Amino acid sequence: MMATDTGTDTGKLLSILVNAYTGALISVSRTVGIDAEFVKAEISHGINAPGSRVAALIGIVGGTVHSTASLMADLPAFEAYVAAFTGGMVKADIDDPMSMSVIGELTNMISGQALIKADVPNLDITPPQMLSGENLKAIPPKKAGVKSFTLPFSVGGGKLFLILSVHG
Amino acid sequence: MMATDTGTDTGKLLSILVNAYTGALISVSRTVGIDAEFVKAEISHGINAPGSRVAALIGIVGGTVHSTASLMADLPAFEAYVAAFTGGMVKADIDDPMSMSVIGELTNMISGQALIKADVPNLDITPPQMLSGENLKAIPPKKAGVKSFTLPFSVGGGKLFLILSVHG
Repeated sequence: MMATDTGTDTGKLLSILVNAYTGALISVSRTVGIDAEFVKAEISHGINAPGSRVAALIGIVGGTVHSTASLMADLPAFEAYVAAFTGGMVKADIDDPMSMSVIGELTNMISGQALIKADVPNLDITPPQMLSGENLKAIPPKKAGVKSFTLPFSVGGGKLFLILSVHG
Repeated sequence: MMATDTGTDTGKLLSILVNAYTGALISVSRTVGIDAEFVKAEISHGINAPGSRVAALIGIVGGTVHSTASLMADLPAFEAYVAAFTGGMVKADIDDPMSMSVIGELTNMISGQALIKADVPNLDITPPQMLSGENLKAIPPKKAGVKSFTLPFSVGGGKLFLILSVHG
């Protein structure tokens, strides 16, 4: 690997990713006709995504970066994106791979746009993994050096959470 | 990046990872005193992990590889690993980061050993992401070129599932 440590520490990288992902989420949502409103007052360190029923996770790796980006949504937000992506042709159903693929594709599109904006060289991502459940919770790693951040968005009467975890 | 396509196709890579991960899961379990029995008859294409309450996901990226490895467990299997890793000092609780970190660390250790065995150059992994929920389900991507495979293991009266997804 030719990657060299450019002195980007965990905190700085997290802040770059937070800004890039926030902009990308709003922008991608707008292109499918959804107004995702960033709820700045509810930003939190760690992971805090109450009411979530679906999640899509993407791994981001390259150079000194070892991160994950996760989207978690409650039912109203999930329904809003499924309706928007399918033109109302697919009914949102957490057991249906077709509607779950919407949340995966959304995570993919946001990550693609965010990582271009972030301009960290040589980043590569995994395909999104989708999970559903009742009382769905993401639990932050208890490891030193792992920092997580939850960005909440108001969507269609529901909540969409973007969770970034960076390993220093 | 210096990585070149060595002609490893998705099916071959998946088979390499399946073998390496199966061996690593059994070996790592044994080192903490757990007899994880591979239930060959229940191997399935796609994702099939009924009864799961906890999940830990790791992204694997490098060269032409874009994969994820997930462990999913029901309560008895989760309890067995928490007891084994903590010497019975921690009661398994899906809402407790301390006991959830066990399933993350297990996924880390298995991935570390599996990727050394698999001997695919330049692979890099993300920190594990842990999720819990009732009726927890992983939904396979509906994308062409993504292949998933579920390997079931019998553990302490419960079930542990190893899910590998490879993007071609």
